[in-house]
Amino acid sequence: MVEVDSRRSPREIIQEVADEIPAIEPEWQRRALRHLDNLTKPRGSLGRLEEIAVRLAGIEQSDLLDCKNKAIFTLAADHGVTEENVSAYPKAVTGQMVRNFLLGGAAINVLCRQFGIEVIVVDIGVDGKVDLDARLVDRKVANGTHNMARGPAMEENELAAALTVGVELAAGAAERGSRLIGTGEMGIGNTTAASAITAVLTGRPASEVTGVGTGLDSAGVARKIAVIERAIAVNRPNRADAIDVLQKVGGLEIAGLTGLILGAAARRLAVVVDGFISTAGAALACALEPRVGNFLFAAHRSIEPGHGFLLELIAQRPLLDLEMRLGEGTGSALAMAVIESAANLFNQMATFSSAGVSGAVA
Amino acid sequence: MVEVDSRRSPREIIQEVADEIPAIEPEWQRRALRHLDNLTKPRGSLGRLEEIAVRLAGIEQSDLLDCKNKAIFTLAADHGVTEENVSAYPKAVTGQMVRNFLLGGAAINVLCRQFGIEVIVVDIGVDGKVDLDARLVDRKVANGTHNMARGPAMEENELAAALTVGVELAAGAAERGSRLIGTGEMGIGNTTAASAITAVLTGRPASEVTGVGTGLDSAGVARKIAVIERAIAVNRPNRADAIDVLQKVGGLEIAGLTGLILGAAARRLAVVVDGFISTAGAALACALEPRVGNFLFAAHRSIEPGHGFLLELIAQRPLLDLEMRLGEGTGSALAMAVIESAANLFNQMATFSSAGVSGAVA
Repeated sequence: MVEVDSRRSPREIIQEVADEIPAIEPEWQRRALRHLDNLTKPRGSLGRLEEIAVRLAGIEQSDLLDCKNKAIFTLAADHGVTEENVSAYPKAVTGQMVRNFLLGGAAINVLCRQFGIEVIVVDIGVDGKVDLDARLVDRKVANGTHNMARGPAMEENELAAALTVGVELAAGAAERGSRLIGTGEMGIGNTTAASAITAVLTGRPASEVTGVGTGLDSAGVARKIAVIERAIAVNRPNRADAIDVLQKVGGLEIAGLTGLILGAAARRLAVVVDGFISTAGAALACALEPRVGNFLFAAHRSIEPGHGFLLELIAQRPLLDLEMRLGEGTGSALAMAVIESAANLFNQMATFSSAGVSGAVA
Repeated sequence: MVEVDSRRSPREIIQEVADEIPAIEPEWQRRALRHLDNLTKPRGSLGRLEEIAVRLAGIEQSDLLDCKNKAIFTLAADHGVTEENVSAYPKAVTGQMVRNFLLGGAAINVLCRQFGIEVIVVDIGVDGKVDLDARLVDRKVANGTHNMARGPAMEENELAAALTVGVELAAGAAERGSRLIGTGEMGIGNTTAASAITAVLTGRPASEVTGVGTGLDSAGVARKIAVIERAIAVNRPNRADAIDVLQKVGGLEIAGLTGLILGAAARRLAVVVDGFISTAGAALACALEPRVGNFLFAAHRSIEPGHGFLLELIAQRPLLDLEMRLGEGTGSALAMAVIESAANLFNQMATFSSAGVSGAVA
């Protein structure tokens, strides 16, 4: 278990990291745009790849874009709300899938191998002992959350610990030389938490923001909606207070992701936000400190109905739309390949003058 | 110059290759779907990546999907219609960019290096001599097309030769062990030809299917539309006869792409179709032999307004939408990485039983 410094509240932890998040100076973006316009292609013809390159140049403050040491953090935790029968899979699957990640057999492993991305698997709250393995980052805060249909998902000190884990993971990535990281998660029951967060943050009814998750039938979705409505009625989370929302209807991995995203922005790392659950963590981070949005890239559009509302909240257009809904960081992995393409094009393409190519007549 | 067997007409060449295109047997796709449902993920949760894997299994007739020896064919040719001032760039840029491709400085080179794809640069009709280089595939049919605003773009024997080049390139790829190839092109003026083809095949006015190309201003777009209208009025291409359309308002690289796509399907290769110009070649191939559609993957949605209409014609949903409009095969390169992801997931993921993960309760 993570040792928690019980003297520091979630609010103090957030305040400290949020204060470190820099503003983006537009001069680096202007330089990047001028460089792009000299490369051997019609102006703007690489579309969103050019937009990515410009944003990265602003984040990295550099004329050479660096995507080395790419890493995806897959945070795993259990959810007490699974008692309410809100998932198509038994809770034990969280720990079983962590083992699968460590053995290299999951989707996230396959994609990260293809694209040269390190997968960092973090137990931040799996219920029970995962087979110990040197590759697992053991930062367990608790054996899952409490059942949010009956009361707050977390104690205040658990939330503080989970946020701290995320902030520290980002700091470690920065120290290892990463400039681009991705989010991922695993947790049976966590679309229920993400839908509850979405309902609260957007003020929309649970029925509009709740989907099939891992594959519920229509009766299962109706039950899930009722459980989310109950969790909100029991806890009365304060929409204007992201910390309150996170503690009452969040999850340990979602809190960890919120901390990771804030911590990454504080270290000037670009962060690729995976799907629905990761975007819930990102939306809470943006609510806590809007400057964090400058460092985010939304990986893909999940088919979970709540995801589009969260993307609006964080003002990001996803890079991909492949109708995925797996999580783990799988969308992040694919999107990181696209972001690396943008960086490579920016760094490696010839200019009109270096290649002896005539410019536009007009 | 390519030697043309003047005894064979375009129609005979097409007929021969079209007859070799196999049907897809659904049993391989059913087997693939069963395999996907055993992998450690909720059923269908990889979205379009699963659809890609199923289609590849049908094409390759295999339980192990093979994307080795990936290659993109970038076919370059000039267009006589550039006399009408339809491009923002001078015609000389076609040959200059071919040189840039051979030196590795263009966008297509950067992306292919990232994703381990070979770029095969083919001079199928560049006006004038490109600096000879061992890396250039010299299959020049003519020094560009004639000006289609004054008469047919090609002679019948030129069309026959360009189709043959494409068919032979596909055969060569199959012999070198490629299972997945991509299309690309370079040719100042070729969005004018692609827009004319789109107008004829869809029966839509030129004004609806014509865009800025490499970056025309609004007066330039108006001029381009008028030129396309004139080319159609002068040549009266027969909408129901793709060969007639290709000869009158096509291009040597577009004819080459049509041949390449038909030839690839005849050899059971999956073909990634790049953007607007490549899709014009694919639409003509599909008009000539609808079975070819089973072998196509549309890489991305270009922002050229005609592209969406062509995608409807070939009944393909593009994999990516990054607002690109560069050509060269740049969309193909990115899409090939996604297709390889689908294959890798299919080949490498653990099953529920091999990983000891519980299945769905329902």
